[in-house]
Amino acid sequence: MQIGMVGLGRMGSNMVQRLQSRGHDCVVYDSQPQALSAAADQGAAAFSNLPDFVQALARPRAIWLMVPAAVVDGVLDTLAPLLDEDDIVIDGGNSSYHDDIRRASKLAQSGLHYMDVGTSGGVAGRERGYCLMIGGDAATYRHLEPIFAALAPGAEAAPHTPGRVGQTSADKGYLHCGPHGAGHFVKMVHNGIEYGIMAAYAEGLNILHQGNIGKQERKADAETTPLRHPEHYQYDFDLPEITELWRRGSVVGSWLLDLTAQALQGDPDLDGYTGHVSDSGEGRWALSAAIDQGVPTPVLSAALFSRFESRGNADYANRVLSAMRKQFGGHAEQGKEQG
Amino acid sequence: MQIGMVGLGRMGSNMVQRLQSRGHDCVVYDSQPQALSAAADQGAAAFSNLPDFVQALARPRAIWLMVPAAVVDGVLDTLAPLLDEDDIVIDGGNSSYHDDIRRASKLAQSGLHYMDVGTSGGVAGRERGYCLMIGGDAATYRHLEPIFAALAPGAEAAPHTPGRVGQTSADKGYLHCGPHGAGHFVKMVHNGIEYGIMAAYAEGLNILHQGNIGKQERKADAETTPLRHPEHYQYDFDLPEITELWRRGSVVGSWLLDLTAQALQGDPDLDGYTGHVSDSGEGRWALSAAIDQGVPTPVLSAALFSRFESRGNADYANRVLSAMRKQFGGHAEQGKEQG
Amino acid sequence: MQIGMVGLGRMGSNMVQRLQSRGHDCVVYDSQPQALSAAADQGAAAFSNLPDFVQALARPRAIWLMVPAAVVDGVLDTLAPLLDEDDIVIDGGNSSYHDDIRRASKLAQSGLHYMDVGTSGGVAGRERGYCLMIGGDAATYRHLEPIFAALAPGAEAAPHTPGRVGQTSADKGYLHCGPHGAGHFVKMVHNGIEYGIMAAYAEGLNILHQGNIGKQERKADAETTPLRHPEHYQYDFDLPEITELWRRGSVVGSWLLDLTAQALQGDPDLDGYTGHVSDSGEGRWALSAAIDQGVPTPVLSAALFSRFESRGNADYANRVLSAMRKQFGGHAEQGKEQG
Amino acid sequence: MQIGMVGLGRMGSNMVQRLQSRGHDCVVYDSQPQALSAAADQGAAAFSNLPDFVQALARPRAIWLMVPAAVVDGVLDTLAPLLDEDDIVIDGGNSSYHDDIRRASKLAQSGLHYMDVGTSGGVAGRERGYCLMIGGDAATYRHLEPIFAALAPGAEAAPHTPGRVGQTSADKGYLHCGPHGAGHFVKMVHNGIEYGIMAAYAEGLNILHQGNIGKQERKADAETTPLRHPEHYQYDFDLPEITELWRRGSVVGSWLLDLTAQALQGDPDLDGYTGHVSDSGEGRWALSAAIDQGVPTPVLSAALFSRFESRGNADYANRVLSAMRKQFGGHAEQGKEQG
Repeated sequence: MQIGMVGLGRMGSNMVQRLQSRGHDCVVYDSQPQALSAAADQGAAAFSNLPDFVQALARPRAIWLMVPAAVVDGVLDTLAPLLDEDDIVIDGGNSSYHDDIRRASKLAQSGLHYMDVGTSGGVAGRERGYCLMIGGDAATYRHLEPIFAALAPGAEAAPHTPGRVGQTSADKGYLHCGPHGAGHFVKMVHNGIEYGIMAAYAEGLNILHQGNIGKQERKADAETTPLRHPEHYQYDFDLPEITELWRRGSVVGSWLLDLTAQALQGDPDLDGYTGHVSDSGEGRWALSAAIDQGVPTPVLSAALFSRFESRGNADYANRVLSAMRKQFGGHAEQGKEQG
Repeated sequence: MQIGMVGLGRMGSNMVQRLQSRGHDCVVYDSQPQALSAAADQGAAAFSNLPDFVQALARPRAIWLMVPAAVVDGVLDTLAPLLDEDDIVIDGGNSSYHDDIRRASKLAQSGLHYMDVGTSGGVAGRERGYCLMIGGDAATYRHLEPIFAALAPGAEAAPHTPGRVGQTSADKGYLHCGPHGAGHFVKMVHNGIEYGIMAAYAEGLNILHQGNIGKQERKADAETTPLRHPEHYQYDFDLPEITELWRRGSVVGSWLLDLTAQALQGDPDLDGYTGHVSDSGEGRWALSAAIDQGVPTPVLSAALFSRFESRGNADYANRVLSAMRKQFGGHAEQGKEQG
Repeated sequence: MQIGMVGLGRMGSNMVQRLQSRGHDCVVYDSQPQALSAAADQGAAAFSNLPDFVQALARPRAIWLMVPAAVVDGVLDTLAPLLDEDDIVIDGGNSSYHDDIRRASKLAQSGLHYMDVGTSGGVAGRERGYCLMIGGDAATYRHLEPIFAALAPGAEAAPHTPGRVGQTSADKGYLHCGPHGAGHFVKMVHNGIEYGIMAAYAEGLNILHQGNIGKQERKADAETTPLRHPEHYQYDFDLPEITELWRRGSVVGSWLLDLTAQALQGDPDLDGYTGHVSDSGEGRWALSAAIDQGVPTPVLSAALFSRFESRGNADYANRVLSAMRKQFGGHAEQGKEQG
Repeated sequence: MQIGMVGLGRMGSNMVQRLQSRGHDCVVYDSQPQALSAAADQGAAAFSNLPDFVQALARPRAIWLMVPAAVVDGVLDTLAPLLDEDDIVIDGGNSSYHDDIRRASKLAQSGLHYMDVGTSGGVAGRERGYCLMIGGDAATYRHLEPIFAALAPGAEAAPHTPGRVGQTSADKGYLHCGPHGAGHFVKMVHNGIEYGIMAAYAEGLNILHQGNIGKQERKADAETTPLRHPEHYQYDFDLPEITELWRRGSVVGSWLLDLTAQALQGDPDLDGYTGHVSDSGEGRWALSAAIDQGVPTPVLSAALFSRFESRGNADYANRVLSAMRKQFGGHAEQGKEQG
């Protein structure tokens, strides 16, 4: 079927490729000529002008937005007036589900249908397929199902779950999770979990990375805790080998581990990175939802806060601690340890 | 080659089966007649008497202990005097690596070789193979390599890592991680990571599970925070479907997710469990190591503490909080919410 | 000066007493006859009917609301139509500062002034005075200053801060923190800190409370980590004595410690409490603000989540963990430990 | 009575001053001539040679060590052979209680008595007195009680706890907490609590410090979460005033708050500090004890880990996160935010 794609960044352009290669007909819009011509090369009808793009789509139009969450509302303000009743807008980016609820309600006043689709899979999605968490009304979901099925990985992407009777779309990698906002709600929680898993690996690898700390000289003063048992920390662990090892048979095997093993090949100290870790919003929203609900999420929050700290956002708090220590103990600050 | 196995619990008996089926010759010891006869049925030479077991092994003997960490020292006290120079004892259980260092040094005084092997894979290991993290001297490691190779999953258990040149034993699922203690050190960190990953899923699923909290009546008093936006929590999420969905194409795909999807089939509320979650030691030791090293592990610690709390171990602390609130605010305690 | 008080709960009635005793003239409203007659006994003009209460106040009226945060909007809906231009409404309860911003703007459309006052001090405030964190426009603040000064503890409540030049209202225990919402913003952060401090004491006391854990028998199985060094946990600590001790000269001296020492007198095990700890909202909002800001707050969040867990809100997550352990390790659940 | 003091750093020299001024007779040892002559000026008998110092003390000698925890064992190795039966050695520094148990047992073999004293109070202790947490045998405790009483703040340092019947030494600021190690165990927990309280304030003040974050321009790209409600973050909070405010009547009043208010006078941004926060060991040991006991301490651990992170110790973990994000999402790192 025909689909319009707004936004040809890393995600949008890959999705267009996957859809084209599976027989769907993409009409695309972006402001970057290079992205447009790349899409055109793959057979998409490419437009740098939004009204032309809209005109090129058959009614009822199905337009998939793949743009930063912060600009979705702006795009909708421009796009909506160009659309006709029963047209469909899909937000496939990382919007807050609060925005979905609001937008769906507003667009419905003009007879437009809004769907929210949480899309996971990253740059590998073009080949592996995308995991799609979908919210909105059921009729629109069914109308778009061929597109979802083409983007999703398919049943063969994972072994059948023992004890599972029959097969639903979940077994193929896409799911209608509920009404408006349900897709991005599930994606939000998915990303909260993702942050937690990533942090679990990162912390564990840091322990291994410091496995030889007993070999280092340590000073002894009232400000510095001596390492009580240096003989316990004499290990020079080979992290590329260990992450490779865990990929087979261990309880911690995962796709994120596969990627970690890959990243460590040839760069075990990861010197090419500064370690300022961004967060794209979902982890924050997952935590806010948990707080609203009264659900304890110590791991998800710790993972998020580590990212905040990695970007220097604890600096003032740390200076408060140093100032207190100076006041009560006359303690002078020491230098940085690691890094 | 021949191997002696001490301990035919869930893990030991499965490992014997795997070894026998791959052409190795197992001599086994346990105090439970049932376990012994099951092993004998699979072709193992079975003994309920430790001296007879030792006598049945050809020198240099290789004896694998698969017993609870708390009883390893007791077993060694009985076993070591029965052994001869150059015999090998392998601790495949969940010992602390501190104990490995101590035991290796003590057994070396009698000319015995000690190897520590962290074994991951659980009850599925018989079919999937076991991921083996191995510590000890290199010559003994090489001597035992056929056994390790038979227990490990093999290279085909995971796709080749892109960019990885050549193939080591890690690509087959076993690795000599370093000197004495290195195997259990890596296993300890592995389990710390495992706790963190498990908690990330559990917390995220709890948020989804409470997705319909806005449908519930809530009282309004000074002790209870009202849910500010009940309209944001009107979702009845289908957790068996969502966990199945995430298995394909998503960033959070993992073996633990596969198992979670399986556990949720037919029991989405998990009513068969009380939620008192044990920990078998490694998570604690991983955290202790991190503290020694000065490595921040907020996620691993949060995961561990959640288990402690699940067993009621915050009860006194919580009563202290209630007592304080009573003192300063005259607040009376309310009942339990969830559960 | 004259002040109207709506709500004669624990806080409101004590504040009326303090104001009356300091020469201010209170007009009070509540639906509970008992609370009204108690206030009348102290010289307040008491009304069980809101229009009569409003009529009894001289213009411009100053009306202080001391009601649960969840009912403030309802009260305002009833009250506002009864008021005249330039009347003042003060929310002295635990509202979210988001609500303050909204309400101030709405009431301003009718020429009404809104002030938000975070009030700390609890039941002891009648004697000790209340710490007042005030938001709103400066002219209204100045108009109400006699009331604030009477409620606040006064300069003598704490020693002068060395190095501090001059004296502001902060030295007396009340402060105009900024425009609308600033008072409840500061109170929100104050309570977030309060939760963190309380949890720090509670966790530490729990460690002391378990100081004799080495004296207990422990079972040894694969599910239970043995206590490696029982000889390190042979202490029977006297918590009433230790908390009393810390009140003098130690770094952890505080008013909350004073109250804890008091609570532990005669009840060191706090058996009169169940340990289901409520939270009244500010701790949640402080955390939400931090998340919006990208400010790491691992301690404040851990304190909040411990309260959630104390009320059973981790139960589903814990069952997920047990279900996973059953799947991969065949582990059966054990019973509860503490409590 | 007479007391020998080994170590005239910040703590030791102040304690000598306090003891001398209260009529006790100090004999002191240090290697720094300046420290010695300052003590001599206050009437202490000063020695730069350990054997002379020992000879100057009347038997049974009472020698108080006030040196870094890392050098106590070295000092004891030199000192013990110079002592006679029934002499007393007091470790008043920040030793691990594990070391106390070991040392007491070893010194007892030579008929020497060992006492462990956790000393809180910092540089203010000379005037305010020191809070003393004491472990060891009861007879030695009673023998030294005049010294403890002189160092402690005395009963007048805090108001009598309501409901408390009678008065013990705890009401004066010193306590015999139990057998060997009990003093440093209690001090260890005390410092764990201290870290938690400090972090609670620091995190809260950081939220206030970022109260005007909505005034800043923010970029909008897929890597950066937009601030959804900049209108909620328009406050320029005056932190010196707010911390001063909280000192009177609020629930969060404490000595640490007094010091924080003092530190913020004239330096609200604390630009004189780098924010690399040391830890002197007790916080780590408190956490290790909690882990041994199975006691959940999420707040104490979060406080400790924040210090580790402030010193750069999460750097490798953060680079792992960046490497993963690069792998799955093609995400490039952004710069630092705060600081």
